[in-house]
Amino acid sequence: MMALSFFGLALASAEGGKLLLTLFVMFVAAKLAAELFERLKQPAVAGEILAGIIIGPSVLHLVEPNDLTSSLAEIGVIFLLFLVGLETKPADIFRVGVRAIWVAILGVIVPFIFGYLTIKAWDGHQIEAVFTGAAMVATSVGITARVLGQMGLLNLEVSRIILGAAVIDDILGLIILAIVSSMAKGNVNYAEILTTAGLAIGFTLIIILIGAKTVNRIRPRVAKLKVAQSQLVFGLSLCLGLALVANFIQVAPIIGAFLAGMALSESAEGTDTPHQVEAVTEFLLPFFLTNIGMQLKLDAFLNKQTIILALIITFLAVISKIIGCGLAAASMGRKKALQIGVGMVPRGEVGIVVAQIGLTLHAVSDSVFGVVLFMAVASTLIAPPFLVMLFKDEMR
Amino acid sequence: MMALSFFGLALASAEGGKLLLTLFVMFVAAKLAAELFERLKQPAVAGEILAGIIIGPSVLHLVEPNDLTSSLAEIGVIFLLFLVGLETKPADIFRVGVRAIWVAILGVIVPFIFGYLTIKAWDGHQIEAVFTGAAMVATSVGITARVLGQMGLLNLEVSRIILGAAVIDDILGLIILAIVSSMAKGNVNYAEILTTAGLAIGFTLIIILIGAKTVNRIRPRVAKLKVAQSQLVFGLSLCLGLALVANFIQVAPIIGAFLAGMALSESAEGTDTPHQVEAVTEFLLPFFLTNIGMQLKLDAFLNKQTIILALIITFLAVISKIIGCGLAAASMGRKKALQIGVGMVPRGEVGIVVAQIGLTLHAVSDSVFGVVLFMAVASTLIAPPFLVMLFKDEMR
Repeated sequence: MMALSFFGLALASAEGGKLLLTLFVMFVAAKLAAELFERLKQPAVAGEILAGIIIGPSVLHLVEPNDLTSSLAEIGVIFLLFLVGLETKPADIFRVGVRAIWVAILGVIVPFIFGYLTIKAWDGHQIEAVFTGAAMVATSVGITARVLGQMGLLNLEVSRIILGAAVIDDILGLIILAIVSSMAKGNVNYAEILTTAGLAIGFTLIIILIGAKTVNRIRPRVAKLKVAQSQLVFGLSLCLGLALVANFIQVAPIIGAFLAGMALSESAEGTDTPHQVEAVTEFLLPFFLTNIGMQLKLDAFLNKQTIILALIITFLAVISKIIGCGLAAASMGRKKALQIGVGMVPRGEVGIVVAQIGLTLHAVSDSVFGVVLFMAVASTLIAPPFLVMLFKDEMR
Repeated sequence: MMALSFFGLALASAEGGKLLLTLFVMFVAAKLAAELFERLKQPAVAGEILAGIIIGPSVLHLVEPNDLTSSLAEIGVIFLLFLVGLETKPADIFRVGVRAIWVAILGVIVPFIFGYLTIKAWDGHQIEAVFTGAAMVATSVGITARVLGQMGLLNLEVSRIILGAAVIDDILGLIILAIVSSMAKGNVNYAEILTTAGLAIGFTLIIILIGAKTVNRIRPRVAKLKVAQSQLVFGLSLCLGLALVANFIQVAPIIGAFLAGMALSESAEGTDTPHQVEAVTEFLLPFFLTNIGMQLKLDAFLNKQTIILALIITFLAVISKIIGCGLAAASMGRKKALQIGVGMVPRGEVGIVVAQIGLTLHAVSDSVFGVVLFMAVASTLIAPPFLVMLFKDEMR
């Protein structure tokens, strides 16, 4: 009924203690790993995900992923994307719009085909192949955004292309998932899929087009409110509200949070809001990163066959994004194309959710689910060090 | 297994949507009520608790209290007390130590006796009377701290007496609860109770005495760490760590968080840390305040008898703290004595937890549980407006 543990006796102590232990272990493990990785000149993000693997069910069993950890994780990544949005003006995304669309489209098609063909060749199951392809499609933009944000490089043209492409990528992924889910259920409802796609595209365009203008008009009134920290309160309400609307029309909540940040970005410039959102993000983000690592269950890999398949799928997941997104950005030169390609590699939580839906619909076997899980975590872990290498010159 | 709802289809959407809806409704309702109350020149805190009553099971049923809301609530109040600690130096508390001890002791004895005698006279149950007395003992210091903090009055002598007394009060309450719990179980283990008391007192004294010194020695090294925002990370780790230790030795986690803040207060002065912790608190505190209101279930009050008892107990809960704490502070003059007495009135989450333990041990009937719940919420709601009135002159 209630987990508060003031006076921590009896039942109160056990539950409240569990909450505090979970928070402490996840936060401190993440930050110790981050410190270690920074000293090794590796990205902190990778360290924090690795910390999750170590404290999670794969190694030390200190924390099991549960409703609380995943809720904190979701709030954490929502704040991250809100913060990234606050540093991105709508015009920045518009300027790279066409390029971002192509990066997203080719970055969806190539991984899907690679994933589909591999599983089809491996065990011949049509629907399983389709789901694996779908799980290889979506980019977990939070990871790349965090790496680039910590390097202070979110303002680069390539960073904006990655962000824009990730938003479009999410919408394309949504459509693909809607199609493959209805395939698994045996009836493809095209009208429904079109409605879903239309809503997602409409929502995104409306917020990009009129969000900032509306916000700019409202903010002077917000300043006159009596409530303490009214600008922060307004920002947080907008973030939570658009994340909720996004979720309601089946777009990822992080897209809503990102759009909310972008709508606020002009009027928030020079105010305290980005700094305050950064503080909240610093507290909550470690729960998102460790939670990714905690999803991995290494005991699902007891046989050689699965290990081989997992390595193949992971390799293809990395290569296919680099080829697909890189091709779309080829005219920008080899280096920028590679930066964009690698930036789109992390699959993180998104790939896991797709595979989980496949599992629920009995479209995906346990071993392929394990393989996709491995691919999602591994691709997320591999990309950051390469990003640091590829963006080394821009850092100077 | 996992509640992330990126790509929000099927199962993913329902769970993630519920999380976001809960966050949005609690946060926005709290802040709308805070704005309304500020305009009416009433304390925002009371508005946010009232918002919880309205959105909760008593009125609109928009959000039910559950593990997630209580977890967010606990994290919220931990951050609040951490923030209050950051603004309190150990020497400030030492200077008012003796006074605070007397305020705590009389503020525990008088309410206990009032509660005990009332229930004893009402239905004659010994153990129920003892539990009701115990539930009337403990102060929910967060409410008063928030009101005084928002008025910028945490540095007053009376504010420090209230904070110090609340810490001691919590330890006394812990001892009383240990005694009445073992009475309810039928065997009072004095050795265990003494150990509990000794640990609680020892922990508090050690952190007050050597916490700040140790932290002052460590912080220059923290500045040299490579991890981003190392000072904030260190502060948050200390806060979570001491809250965890406090809970482990059965003291309220908020006491650990408060002590962590106090240990950091000297070295954090003039740095960014208090400002950053404030931002996190602004986000999380509404969940604590609304969650208090959400505990109230008005349908438990369908009969006249219960309503009368609830009003009597609430009246006595208010009066007994004012008499007890006021007596201990009488030599400071009537006004300061009244400020301290009213500052100790809110029972909030602490009274609820005690009553819940009584319910679990079958020592308290459902109707008396409802009565204590009402007292806890009502006392928390009543105190803030009076505090604002009583501290009006100091504000100028």
